Amino acid sequence: MSKQAKQRILSGMRPTGKLHLGHLHGVLENWKRLQDKYECFFLVADWHALTTSYERPQEIPSNKDEMVLDWLAAGIDPDRATLFVQSEVKEHAELHLMLSMITPVSWLERNPTYKEQQQHLKEKELATFGFLGYPVLQAADILLYKGHKVPVGVDQLPHIELAREITRRFNYLYKDIFSVPEALLAEVPKLPGLDGRKMSKSYGNSIFLSDPPDVVRKKISAMITDVERPRMGDPGDPENRCIAFKLHRLYLPAEQLEVIVSECKAAKRGCAACKKELAEAIIRKMDPIWQRRKALAADPGKVKAILADGANRARKVAQSTMAQVWSALWNRNAK
Amino acid sequence: MSKQAKQRILSGMRPTGKLHLGHLHGVLENWKRLQDKYECFFLVADWHALTTSYERPQEIPSNKDEMVLDWLAAGIDPDRATLFVQSEVKEHAELHLMLSMITPVSWLERNPTYKEQQQHLKEKELATFGFLGYPVLQAADILLYKGHKVPVGVDQLPHIELAREITRRFNYLYKDIFSVPEALLAEVPKLPGLDGRKMSKSYGNSIFLSDPPDVVRKKISAMITDVERPRMGDPGDPENRCIAFKLHRLYLPAEQLEVIVSECKAAKRGCAACKKELAEAIIRKMDPIWQRRKALAADPGKVKAILADGANRARKVAQSTMAQVWSALWNRNAK
Repeated sequence: MSKQAKQRILSGMRPTGKLHLGHLHGVLENWKRLQDKYECFFLVADWHALTTSYERPQEIPSNKDEMVLDWLAAGIDPDRATLFVQSEVKEHAELHLMLSMITPVSWLERNPTYKEQQQHLKEKELATFGFLGYPVLQAADILLYKGHKVPVGVDQLPHIELAREITRRFNYLYKDIFSVPEALLAEVPKLPGLDGRKMSKSYGNSIFLSDPPDVVRKKISAMITDVERPRMGDPGDPENRCIAFKLHRLYLPAEQLEVIVSECKAAKRGCAACKKELAEAIIRKMDPIWQRRKALAADPGKVKAILADGANRARKVAQSTMAQVWSALWNRNAK
Repeated sequence: MSKQAKQRILSGMRPTGKLHLGHLHGVLENWKRLQDKYECFFLVADWHALTTSYERPQEIPSNKDEMVLDWLAAGIDPDRATLFVQSEVKEHAELHLMLSMITPVSWLERNPTYKEQQQHLKEKELATFGFLGYPVLQAADILLYKGHKVPVGVDQLPHIELAREITRRFNYLYKDIFSVPEALLAEVPKLPGLDGRKMSKSYGNSIFLSDPPDVVRKKISAMITDVERPRMGDPGDPENRCIAFKLHRLYLPAEQLEVIVSECKAAKRGCAACKKELAEAIIRKMDPIWQRRKALAADPGKVKAILADGANRARKVAQSTMAQVWSALWNRNAK
């Protein structure tokens, strides 16, 4: 069998700041698996962050650094994957502008995310040209690296469908230089936060990857468990009522879970002790991440160098793609 | 008096092909005057051409070369003005994307040109995201070079007003790094074409700067003059009825015009002879342009080199502006 080039993955995260356990299990562990099998480009989507944060862009640079520290600490490997900042590769803006020429406004207006987000983030003025063009920028991100697969959650499927339509339109109008990218539906476990709702920075219910052990202990110990079990002497129902137990399930081994369930139902275990076990389990899981993060944070030049190297590598690929794009556009015999 | 830096002018033309006398008198002669007084950046607006010609981009490269030959032949001086191709300076796309973040869609939708052009060019599908963003791109063109003045015709005033609004919004949101550009209303004489309507390539009534003398003679001799003077023996009314006389006025000296008027009214001069005089006057005017064009066209490397040099000069200015833009955006203490 001939040696085949690996397929390419393009993915990215908006630099919204420190990542939490939801990002770890929902995205980073998936990226870690992908980097073994694919040629991965992981970008810090600062242009995308600007679409919603243009009124407070000052927060983006430090958010970016914290986020990349989290990526590296979680095991994203810059020797295998290309990690870079979107705005440092100017070809993103270039291909965005090019694709804007062939994208009907109506395709963008019927993007369900467009109107939803506008309503969701009512306090911001999001009826901007840049926000409307979000999916065009996303299409440019993917096509610049000729991404074959794009790991996404279900909510992102309309954007990928738009990117696919734009790709087909480019190939039809000019020359068939792009394979139509495919969504790689990631199984994203919705990590429960400290209040039982989905873990989300904006809910204030997160455990961050950068939280030291004491903070983790404090956050877990403050968790509400089973509201219908005010006294230890009351029998609990961890599987149906306890908020903390949702996390136990993820961080404790099966045998230990069985013990907890039976002891709690028999009112033989208190919530405080039970949460301590949870905190220690999370701390054990996070320890290698903290160790790596600490070492990396001690050398701020390191992240800078990784991102500079990543931008150089990304730029080479992006420039080669743009050369093909321009030749497809200008060349009389292209089609 | 201290020596002051010259104010900057930004102007450009879409590469629609060979230029005609309307462009010469309407734009290029104005540019020639401006390059004496201002630091001028004249760009080949190929991105703008793509907004309307994205379905036939193959014509843009040769149109571009022909147009720049015409610029140079008409006396635009690459040693004083910076001549370059918009798409060769990637910062245009970069600032376009940045400004898109702060431009409300409603500002663009109420741009009168947007809906007008869509109706005017009905055969094309112009409801594209790129076409909607035309004024954002124009704002980026101007701001990249910190243009103080933008020579425009009256029909372009809404675009300049939009560029001014976008500039004010940038300065307000981030840092006051841009002076608000001003329209420099150019007195644009509407040059009559061979059929009396405004000279325009699409009307097929143009004399191109590249038309050799014989073609000029042929085009002028085929002109309709005064339809109410079918025979030479009929007295004419050049000032009110003759289509050719509109051009006579522009190309012949006043004394000669007086002779023509009195002879025509007295039916003492035939239209054929009269048009010959016109053709020769135009040919005299165009001769130095032809000579320069011929010399330039004989050396295709020359235009290439001028545009490459211009792109380098433009890029330096554009990169310095973008450095200020990013620092205004990212810097905590910017505002």
